[in-house]
Amino acid sequence: MSVKEIPDIVVGRLPIYLRALQHMAQEGRQVTSSQELGERLGISAAQIRKDLSQFGEFGKQGTGYNIEFLAGQLQQILHLDRVWDVVIVGAGDIGSALARYQGFSHRGFRIKMIYDSDPTKIGSQAGGFTVKDSGGMVAEIKAAGIKLAMIAVPAASAQVVANQLVEAGVQAILNYAPVNLVVPNGVHVQYIDPSTHLQHMTYYLD
Amino acid sequence: MSVKEIPDIVVGRLPIYLRALQHMAQEGRQVTSSQELGERLGISAAQIRKDLSQFGEFGKQGTGYNIEFLAGQLQQILHLDRVWDVVIVGAGDIGSALARYQGFSHRGFRIKMIYDSDPTKIGSQAGGFTVKDSGGMVAEIKAAGIKLAMIAVPAASAQVVANQLVEAGVQAILNYAPVNLVVPNGVHVQYIDPSTHLQHMTYYLD
Repeated sequence: MSVKEIPDIVVGRLPIYLRALQHMAQEGRQVTSSQELGERLGISAAQIRKDLSQFGEFGKQGTGYNIEFLAGQLQQILHLDRVWDVVIVGAGDIGSALARYQGFSHRGFRIKMIYDSDPTKIGSQAGGFTVKDSGGMVAEIKAAGIKLAMIAVPAASAQVVANQLVEAGVQAILNYAPVNLVVPNGVHVQYIDPSTHLQHMTYYLD
Repeated sequence: MSVKEIPDIVVGRLPIYLRALQHMAQEGRQVTSSQELGERLGISAAQIRKDLSQFGEFGKQGTGYNIEFLAGQLQQILHLDRVWDVVIVGAGDIGSALARYQGFSHRGFRIKMIYDSDPTKIGSQAGGFTVKDSGGMVAEIKAAGIKLAMIAVPAASAQVVANQLVEAGVQAILNYAPVNLVVPNGVHVQYIDPSTHLQHMTYYLD
């Protein structure tokens, strides 16, 4: 089956499965089941089996999934059998916290550079990185061949930064600015906006 | 139509529509269309019309949507016609950045308290708040009647914190810890994990 046919919503669940499997592996576990994964994740066992079956046959009826094997397969499917370099644009509170965050390296990512346009921030330290001048960003990202970026600039600047990143060859953007981005086909964007997530939940509250 | 019947994926798009409408209002705009909204959001106009039609009749064929009216309706639907108090648990990098974040107040949320269990953090300042001892958290949240919380503690502590928040009466949790939480029915959880978002996108990259 061509990977092109997999619905994006299914693709989006694979990192969740992978994360749960890696937690289980850390706990010293070797085998799990769609039932157990489902209970941990709040997803039905049938959904998990259906999602995974789109990519192959990873477990045997009755014996469950080998955790290490399935995690390895998911890493391959998600192209995490390599390390991806990532740039951060914006060295404010969020960008600096991302530069310091220790949770990327064991998930397949390596922060390479952090940029800002503010002269008071350029040259300062953020998580072991020296904040670079965003004036040189396009050329430097292009030269380094980096395909992933996180945007942590104010909403009013985010589209301009996204345009520059696309020009630099970036193909996937994780946007922390609370604004939607318009990007060409083939460039992927994901959004992190705590207010949006909270608003999704207040719908259900009285 | 009972609001219970609306698919969660539709509910999740409403805050995105609201955010775009509020940006347009800030730009001084008064009327928009499903076409224009769709172009800003990368969602088809037909999908937007279908989503909105589940909640009522907000625009007229040919004249589009009145931005202020539609935004007001979406705020009511999402229960944002009031201000929701929110607690933060964890005063590390992420929790402190959330405490300082200026993007909540005009989106319907007010940070009320930030907690940590680390004696070196308790009593310190984070975004104008004094970090409180999480030992008193359950009783204080219960007394204040707060229903929303953000978890920004290490993965290993997140489930314990979630249990305490549920005990305190919290009904919606935005979890920044990179681990799935098990909560009772009726308690809502949303997740923010940059690695998961990045992994979703590397699937599509070579």
